[in-house]
Amino acid sequence: MAAKEKTLEDLFLNGLKDVYYTEKQILRALPKMAKAAESDELRQAFETHRGETEGQVQRLEQVFEIMGKKASGKTCPAIQGIIEEGREVMETFAESEALDAGLLAAAQSVEHYEISRYGTLRSWAQELGMKNAVKLLEETLAAGKQSDQLLTELAEARMNQKAA
Amino acid sequence: MAAKEKTLEDLFLNGLKDVYYTEKQILRALPKMAKAAESDELRQAFETHRGETEGQVQRLEQVFEIMGKKASGKTCPAIQGIIEEGREVMETFAESEALDAGLLAAAQSVEHYEISRYGTLRSWAQELGMKNAVKLLEETLAAGKQSDQLLTELAEARMNQKAA
Repeated sequence: MAAKEKTLEDLFLNGLKDVYYTEKQILRALPKMAKAAESDELRQAFETHRGETEGQVQRLEQVFEIMGKKASGKTCPAIQGIIEEGREVMETFAESEALDAGLLAAAQSVEHYEISRYGTLRSWAQELGMKNAVKLLEETLAAGKQSDQLLTELAEARMNQKAA
Repeated sequence: MAAKEKTLEDLFLNGLKDVYYTEKQILRALPKMAKAAESDELRQAFETHRGETEGQVQRLEQVFEIMGKKASGKTCPAIQGIIEEGREVMETFAESEALDAGLLAAAQSVEHYEISRYGTLRSWAQELGMKNAVKLLEETLAAGKQSDQLLTELAEARMNQKAA
């Protein structure tokens, strides 16, 4: 092939575009999840998370800037599938006692997808010697882990309330 | 609606079918990933993981049995998307220095998807008072976390080798 051989930098840029698209999809899904939530705590959590996601988008835009590239997304079948599955659960379990449990599970799948992607991007940025990008990606990675923890706590609170 | 209201047990069964399908898809994807891997360590890791995945399928079949249900899968758009994305990376970065890094990232997304799903299923089994199912799901959850850890180590080893 005459094409220039692909490098880790290409893979990193590919991954950045993937999570940029991912964050935009999540921004669109969150209001629907908030509207569907039965409990006030869960609705509030989804609303708060929307603001956090906007911060994550801004940090990604800074990473694109560091690379001298215009921020752009690339269709990511993984997040499409994860969100599609959340939508199915919302429909199938609408108005049932299990709806919030299903919403929490969908949200945790989203967070874990992000944790895996940002973890990888952070390592690649490290390998590429992009210190400022590492810092920005690490910030979002930590936020993702914290969100996952919050969702676990909400899921436990829901269980304890049922048991009471 | 005349239909019986959906319960947490329905949601649990729905999730079981989802991961059953997921494991079957992973069983099909792993040989392709092993074949594509550049390094012997990564190929070996994918081959070993195939055997572990077979064990996970068997544990899921035991959980279906506990519920008095026949084991069956349900198309899961999330894992379809995650695997599709791995396939894209394999194609785009074929024969490049970044191929193994891309394969490792794809495998970690798969593991994180499983960690989130099995974590949720374990909690629901607990809430439903299914002690034996909790044990089986916990076993697979622990295996998933261990696999993710192994992949992280392989990714670090790859980086250190490049740096040397």
